[in-house]
Amino acid sequence: MHQTTESKITVQKVKNSRIAQVDFKNLTFGNIFSDHMFECDYINGSWQNPTIKPYGPLTISPGAKVFHYAQAVFEGMKAYKDDNGNVFLFRPELNHERINKSSVRMAMPEFPKDIFFEALETLLQLDQEWIKPGMGNSLYIRPFSIATQVGVSASPSDQYKFMILLSPAQAYYTGDVKVVIAQKYSRSANGGVGFAKAAGNYGAQFFPTNLAKAEGFQQVIWTDANEHKYLEEAGTMNVFFRINDTLLTAPTGDRILDGITRKSVIDLAKRSHIKVEERPVLVSEVVDAAKNGTLKEIFGAGTAAVISPVSAFSYANVTYNIPSNNHEYALKLKKELMDIQHNVAEDTFGWRHQVV
Amino acid sequence: MHQTTESKITVQKVKNSRIAQVDFKNLTFGNIFSDHMFECDYINGSWQNPTIKPYGPLTISPGAKVFHYAQAVFEGMKAYKDDNGNVFLFRPELNHERINKSSVRMAMPEFPKDIFFEALETLLQLDQEWIKPGMGNSLYIRPFSIATQVGVSASPSDQYKFMILLSPAQAYYTGDVKVVIAQKYSRSANGGVGFAKAAGNYGAQFFPTNLAKAEGFQQVIWTDANEHKYLEEAGTMNVFFRINDTLLTAPTGDRILDGITRKSVIDLAKRSHIKVEERPVLVSEVVDAAKNGTLKEIFGAGTAAVISPVSAFSYANVTYNIPSNNHEYALKLKKELMDIQHNVAEDTFGWRHQVV
Ligand SMILES: Cc1ncc(COP(=O)(O)O)c(C=O)c1O
Ligand SMILES: Cc1ncc(COP(=O)(O)O)c(C=O)c1O
Repeated sequence: MHQTTESKITVQKVKNSRIAQVDFKNLTFGNIFSDHMFECDYINGSWQNPTIKPYGPLTISPGAKVFHYAQAVFEGMKAYKDDNGNVFLFRPELNHERINKSSVRMAMPEFPKDIFFEALETLLQLDQEWIKPGMGNSLYIRPFSIATQVGVSASPSDQYKFMILLSPAQAYYTGDVKVVIAQKYSRSANGGVGFAKAAGNYGAQFFPTNLAKAEGFQQVIWTDANEHKYLEEAGTMNVFFRINDTLLTAPTGDRILDGITRKSVIDLAKRSHIKVEERPVLVSEVVDAAKNGTLKEIFGAGTAAVISPVSAFSYANVTYNIPSNNHEYALKLKKELMDIQHNVAEDTFGWRHQVV
Repeated sequence: MHQTTESKITVQKVKNSRIAQVDFKNLTFGNIFSDHMFECDYINGSWQNPTIKPYGPLTISPGAKVFHYAQAVFEGMKAYKDDNGNVFLFRPELNHERINKSSVRMAMPEFPKDIFFEALETLLQLDQEWIKPGMGNSLYIRPFSIATQVGVSASPSDQYKFMILLSPAQAYYTGDVKVVIAQKYSRSANGGVGFAKAAGNYGAQFFPTNLAKAEGFQQVIWTDANEHKYLEEAGTMNVFFRINDTLLTAPTGDRILDGITRKSVIDLAKRSHIKVEERPVLVSEVVDAAKNGTLKEIFGAGTAAVISPVSAFSYANVTYNIPSNNHEYALKLKKELMDIQHNVAEDTFGWRHQVV
């Protein structure tokens, strides 16, 4: 647990919790927020007045740069509770590093590690009743930073607001996930911001994803913008392909988010002596493998969805079903990952970070 | 002038104008707003309650999708006043078409033409004192649309807010403009959102532009993300290259904003029998032309800066000065354009749209 000698954060507690109004058995992802939120402002070159207060609306100028130029980055993490009421984060230092990397690329100030952890720990302490024990239950954590300077000239803001919201969550996806391999639209470019969790990367995907949805698919697997020859990642998940008994996944770089679930899945697979290749994955090799029966599985990996088996993919207007093999690797790795997250299995990697 | 049979817009006027506090001789671009603003909400599938009200802060949830996924588009236009107090917009129907094109790409609802024009005209009528006559003076107009649904799942919002802000402006750039030709970073990809005025396109450019600024340059000229071989556009301007007596400019498409100033400059140049080629422009041909003395001018073209002559460019760590030729084409075209905008020259193209 993170120790602080003196608290820097001002805490204003809610008078009455809203928790009794929440139906924890029927949660839609990400639209209910817990009692408290964290807020900290960057003014005159430093982060000031870190505050935890009741969740509620912001008052912000319509001229704030976030609305016009999307100087905005975020993270996605989860807190898990075991059956003894202990609360854990999963590799949270990687989220802190990543939001700072995203911020640098978006010309935004980095956020200090000590305040980040103190904010998380204080929030989770206060709102621990919002975390339900049980596999798949979690409290989704959304740290984000936005440009608040007023002005419509296209230049970086000199004021920012860093916030953390908490939202109780059950499993993210339900049912079969079918995906389309992108052939026309693209998500990111070399030298662009694809590796960052920059807000603009997400809004840009909604239209092509809607086109896929209209044809009965849930997600797009993005390919390189140049030739659409290489498989990259999905909207909010990195992607793994099992050909025979080898897992393939694209290397991270300029264009691909360096996912924490991806990283962890690779370590878990290697621990089980599953061969993993991080290398450019050709669309053509996956299509060929689907045709000749060596494509055994496709699955997505990300904090929100954990591991999400894919049952079919569409490419060049042909749909390839992935023969039901019980999603062997996907489900095995998902169980191993969730067991660590929920404090059911031994944490041989040192991934858990106890908060309460 | 646009005629409406009945007004749909509710108008709440300010009690006291702030105009007396504004120093119109010393305006910084885009950080002062006029007395009134326009607001209209998209709820349950339709645009509702169009309202003009005093400029002031918004109350908005920190969970609103604009903050997390940058579902946000905007426009930039200007109103000009002639010496008789008449107020004009410049080709405003193109801004309306473009914000709708941008909106479609960002999975956002289009905004109705009649409300767009009624809002502009009513606002400009109310705030006409904020428009000062005289060459280079204008009232910058910022229509924009943002996703307001509360929720941190990465999917399109079902609620939006469309707003218009007005900001008094003088000339945008002052002094020499020196540019860097991008070799590492990039602005947009094939199949991406580069052609849209999507907020995320702008925040993504600030970091590489800061790197250029640190070396004494003001702007980056973006190149294709794939090979950095072709010249595309600057941060908020399309770019023209004069080699001998021919103007070259990149064709618009997936990656490049279809600028209204660009379009107009092409028409003005052609009217003067200046040869214009809209075709992929190689970095190498511009570098070669700089070396052999046939590169006569480079200039940017956009609503905010109008036409902005470039005095030098840097490529592969070499700076090429553009021999001072008095920026002949740039200044000629700028004068012709501004004369039309300010109602000093005859409007042979039918570009002016009188509002007041
Ligand atoms: C584009 C993208 N790829 C992959 C991921 C998975 O990353 P992580 O495992 O760190 O959640 C995310 C985030 O959830 C994402 O937004
Ligand atoms: C990226 C970009 N290119 C070019 C332009 C110029 O377009 P317009 O002449 O319509 O203002 C703009 C907008 O100002 C822009 O944002």
